[in-house]
Amino acid sequence: MATAQLTISSKTYSAWSLRGWLMCRLAGLEIRELPAPNNASTRAELLLLSPSVLVPRLTHGEVSVWDTLAIAEYLNETFPEAHMLPTDKAARALCRAISGEIHSGFSNLRSALPMNLKVRHKTFPVFPGARPDIERIEAIWEDCLARYGGPFLFGAEPTIADAMYAPVTRRFITYAVGLRPACQAYCDTIDQWPPMQEWLAAAREEPEELEELEVEF
Amino acid sequence: MATAQLTISSKTYSAWSLRGWLMCRLAGLEIRELPAPNNASTRAELLLLSPSVLVPRLTHGEVSVWDTLAIAEYLNETFPEAHMLPTDKAARALCRAISGEIHSGFSNLRSALPMNLKVRHKTFPVFPGARPDIERIEAIWEDCLARYGGPFLFGAEPTIADAMYAPVTRRFITYAVGLRPACQAYCDTIDQWPPMQEWLAAAREEPEELEELEVEF
Repeated sequence: MATAQLTISSKTYSAWSLRGWLMCRLAGLEIRELPAPNNASTRAELLLLSPSVLVPRLTHGEVSVWDTLAIAEYLNETFPEAHMLPTDKAARALCRAISGEIHSGFSNLRSALPMNLKVRHKTFPVFPGARPDIERIEAIWEDCLARYGGPFLFGAEPTIADAMYAPVTRRFITYAVGLRPACQAYCDTIDQWPPMQEWLAAAREEPEELEELEVEF
Repeated sequence: MATAQLTISSKTYSAWSLRGWLMCRLAGLEIRELPAPNNASTRAELLLLSPSVLVPRLTHGEVSVWDTLAIAEYLNETFPEAHMLPTDKAARALCRAISGEIHSGFSNLRSALPMNLKVRHKTFPVFPGARPDIERIEAIWEDCLARYGGPFLFGAEPTIADAMYAPVTRRFITYAVGLRPACQAYCDTIDQWPPMQEWLAAAREEPEELEELEVEF
């Protein structure tokens, strides 16, 4: 089978690209990265207005699949030995539920604190409308960390839920959002996770050719 | 095992409740319906601002799972004989991809044409911003219907994708949105699907106690 291909956009700005890329790392699938065309759909995705229908997109043999959760489920059934989901049935259901929440919700958080891996604010005025989103995310993380013992959301090994929330940890770091201690520790865990370090290094090297897409909120 | 319970809100207005309920019907799981508490989260869900973290929620034995896609995946792995997803691997990936699209996207369509099963407009001024969403949905449906032969999106039997798009068919009917012929036929298929008929009948009987939640857009 030919090498799998993952279409992604900016490593600096695209939270959905990061999620899809982390899913492939979780699966242990070697991929060739393809840059997304710079069209309206990609722009919308970069502006975080909605997950694009094009980015990320995985091509693997005869299968072409987009949408981050669909990619995750495809990889999970194709590489069951990777244990991308918890083995316990109830934990697996919870993992999918909180992954679904970040997939479809938290729009205030996503627009108020767009992912930007090239900057780090010392202080930042957080839109009050994003506060309930932040509190809900803290509650989710604290519940999972207490229930399964950390350092990842479902215990010793990362799952698709960690890939889904990884960009959120970077938003909290970028915009200096104060978090409860357990949640701060979780952000540090994701920050030190080797695939995340690899992505962050690549983002630092990424040329600033996308300046016209600068988000204004 | 005790009877499963599904927490849902209004049958008239809640598209996410309809989706979760259809997932249970697809799985062949008998459920007891529980009304959602009338709190801020339920209101947000009814106003279609976002899928609620609470509605729908399925309780089945020791498992409690929310988020429509998470419920679908839980039911699919628990009742594999129900074939809620296509058996072909590539079709299954496509089914999940288009289900993911409606789960996280089409926000203009969702806010411009909220589900309301109690009214039927002869004409309705569709917000131009919703037009790209409508065209994307038509493209998805036409592609699937041509590829798998209809009458459902993946052939002779309904899948989770049909449950995900079922509320969209009702929006098009409610607001008299003109569609290409194949898409109109698909709306008719969903309209005549027995579980949909059952839900529609229940919605007609539902008291109008939620008037204060009337959507203004």
